[in-house]
Amino acid sequence: MHGAVEDNLASLVNSRDASLRERARRVVPGGMWGHQNAANLPEGYPQFFARGEGCRIWDVDGNEYIDFMCSWGPIVLGHNHPEVDAAARRQAEQGDLLNGPGEVMVELAEAVVEQVPHADWVQFQKNGSDATTTCVALARAATGRRKVLVARGSYHGAVPWCSPSVAGVTAEDRAHVIQFDYNDGDDLLRAAEEASGDLAAIIVTAFRHDVARDQEMPAPDFARRARAVCDAAGAALIIDDVRAGFRLHSGGSWELVGVRPDLSAWSKAVANGYALAAVTGNDRFREAATKVFSTGSFWCSAISMAAALATLRVLRRDDAIGRMVAMGQQLRDGLDALSRRHGVAIRQSGPVQMPMVLFDDDAEFRKGFAFCAASLRGGVYFHPRHNMFLSAAHGPNDIARALEAAEHGFRAVASLRQPGI
Amino acid sequence: MHGAVEDNLASLVNSRDASLRERARRVVPGGMWGHQNAANLPEGYPQFFARGEGCRIWDVDGNEYIDFMCSWGPIVLGHNHPEVDAAARRQAEQGDLLNGPGEVMVELAEAVVEQVPHADWVQFQKNGSDATTTCVALARAATGRRKVLVARGSYHGAVPWCSPSVAGVTAEDRAHVIQFDYNDGDDLLRAAEEASGDLAAIIVTAFRHDVARDQEMPAPDFARRARAVCDAAGAALIIDDVRAGFRLHSGGSWELVGVRPDLSAWSKAVANGYALAAVTGNDRFREAATKVFSTGSFWCSAISMAAALATLRVLRRDDAIGRMVAMGQQLRDGLDALSRRHGVAIRQSGPVQMPMVLFDDDAEFRKGFAFCAASLRGGVYFHPRHNMFLSAAHGPNDIARALEAAEHGFRAVASLRQPGI
Repeated sequence: MHGAVEDNLASLVNSRDASLRERARRVVPGGMWGHQNAANLPEGYPQFFARGEGCRIWDVDGNEYIDFMCSWGPIVLGHNHPEVDAAARRQAEQGDLLNGPGEVMVELAEAVVEQVPHADWVQFQKNGSDATTTCVALARAATGRRKVLVARGSYHGAVPWCSPSVAGVTAEDRAHVIQFDYNDGDDLLRAAEEASGDLAAIIVTAFRHDVARDQEMPAPDFARRARAVCDAAGAALIIDDVRAGFRLHSGGSWELVGVRPDLSAWSKAVANGYALAAVTGNDRFREAATKVFSTGSFWCSAISMAAALATLRVLRRDDAIGRMVAMGQQLRDGLDALSRRHGVAIRQSGPVQMPMVLFDDDAEFRKGFAFCAASLRGGVYFHPRHNMFLSAAHGPNDIARALEAAEHGFRAVASLRQPGI
Repeated sequence: MHGAVEDNLASLVNSRDASLRERARRVVPGGMWGHQNAANLPEGYPQFFARGEGCRIWDVDGNEYIDFMCSWGPIVLGHNHPEVDAAARRQAEQGDLLNGPGEVMVELAEAVVEQVPHADWVQFQKNGSDATTTCVALARAATGRRKVLVARGSYHGAVPWCSPSVAGVTAEDRAHVIQFDYNDGDDLLRAAEEASGDLAAIIVTAFRHDVARDQEMPAPDFARRARAVCDAAGAALIIDDVRAGFRLHSGGSWELVGVRPDLSAWSKAVANGYALAAVTGNDRFREAATKVFSTGSFWCSAISMAAALATLRVLRRDDAIGRMVAMGQQLRDGLDALSRRHGVAIRQSGPVQMPMVLFDDDAEFRKGFAFCAASLRGGVYFHPRHNMFLSAAHGPNDIARALEAAEHGFRAVASLRQPGI
């Protein structure tokens, strides 16, 4: 046993990942920034990755995993998708970033407007928070009002008006943000009354996908009341579809509840990993969109637009959402069966294609960490606290393999001693 | 004559650019957003581009131009640079966007820290405004203070705290911004006193490159006083090197005046057109950089980092800055000689590799537009109001060709009737 532990330590110390972390710590604060910092993950999780193919990823030490994070969402068709990458390469041979957009911008804009029922127009950006921030500015410019209702705990980006951290943020950055509880129509009304004559917008994520808590689909009544509040006040209903877009419904996630927004923010899955974001809007906000100065050096990159056009085409042709739902359901059913077999209570929530797996009585995530660490050693990359993502590249055999690995995870949880025992 | 005008109109109406503009107007507000909207340019300027190669670009109708905008800055080695594109392709075949960064992030971070004297560390983003906004947040987090001094008219991005437009912006977005006049040390001191005990940072562009006015290099005394104010107050001196970075000095533009910032924002030229931005900082701000939550879905894209690493290597090996200075000087001298020959008074300002050409007595830019429109027909893409950019791909023959085209421009200006005559 002692020897095995030493071997394990030696392999960690001598690993390429460990040596890159050591080098990174010198030249990057904390070794890594933001949500992709592996310091937030169980021991054994790699920080650095070498390549991806379909639903598989390889870390820099050559370890292979079935990937259930999909680069935190963008990879919706699978890593290095041949058709998307071919479209990107063809565009790269012509031109990417020039003094104006390429023809592909028009083709992509037409495809998005055709596919998204509420959209009369579209603009493109680079980050999800470019899109959410632009939506808020458009709502303010169009209405001449200032207040924005935001659900407590919802993530809309890592910029001062909405960052989950307050480091570097001033009170004024959030002076016109009023919070409400997701799916609580009464609280939404209370917040709208607080805004009174100054309501510019309600911004709401496609579903409740806050970190480290059970997910919730939007209640149809809540969604309808949000729409009604905006209609009554002449304010904008903004759906933040950055994380869920093109995984729930190709026309926008709230098509599932029959409620159409005025503005939507998109990013992540739009171009299967190439950097792109988009704002879609209806004609009420078209003029405001000509007035708000929202632009960036790389927003016309034709490569990312060619990749997006290919992604949209393949998504529809292959019924990618249907495949993700089928495989997500197989994963959810399998994890449920395993949890019962091992006598470990879990909660699975949200859409099956964006699974969240949490353990009962696990406030400090000891069980979640043990589950994920053991599953990782079995060759599957799960996340203990954040929703996960399936892609259209996950097939039945991959889910079956993932469930074999998860069995190690459940065993590890079952063998955890209770604290204090 | 009548026939020729009709032919010209017919060719415009039937052009691919015109038909794309017509389609774009339906699905993109105003047909195009932001700084790349060709509606801001003289008639005849194309909106849509097909490809680029070296210092040449082609619009969608096949017209070829010698490019003096370089995609508004990013193209520093020339369009489709073979070594940069090969590095990007090699990385694309492996992996681009994964669950964490690739090894290339560490290599790039080490190269940046080695090259930039003030930098103890670096973080990467996508937009220039990601970098400037992060610098401000880092300064606030590290100092616990709020006020930021910003030069009147300087461009730091298109987000609410600094956008040149106020559409969609609230007063609170700029509550802690205090303005001063660039290169006016007394006014800077006045602004610092206004901030009194609450000064977090001074942010200042590498040189004064405001739109539609003569450019100014930073006065050494002004730069030293900015440094002294920050030292006395314990505030951060932030250089916004987004536009000028890697065109003036590979170690940061204020190396030219011998003043080192605490934080710098970079983007545009860093990866020769691939979307990337960076913040560099010294160790005083390292801990704050572990606390501010600044992150984005695509910030770990390995393709853009591989492109940046190749760009930095080629920049140094080929003395790209030296080449841009030599060719920029040849352009400036040539334009001066032409302007004298045609009796048209111009003002050329700023670094020769980022030229600004303005005409005397031209408040409404009639001369500038006439000059650019005629030069464009001669096969050169100039800008009438924004600083331009050279790349290392511009050679003596390209400059000679550009001067031939500019001769048409000067003739057009000389033949303009004075208003009211």
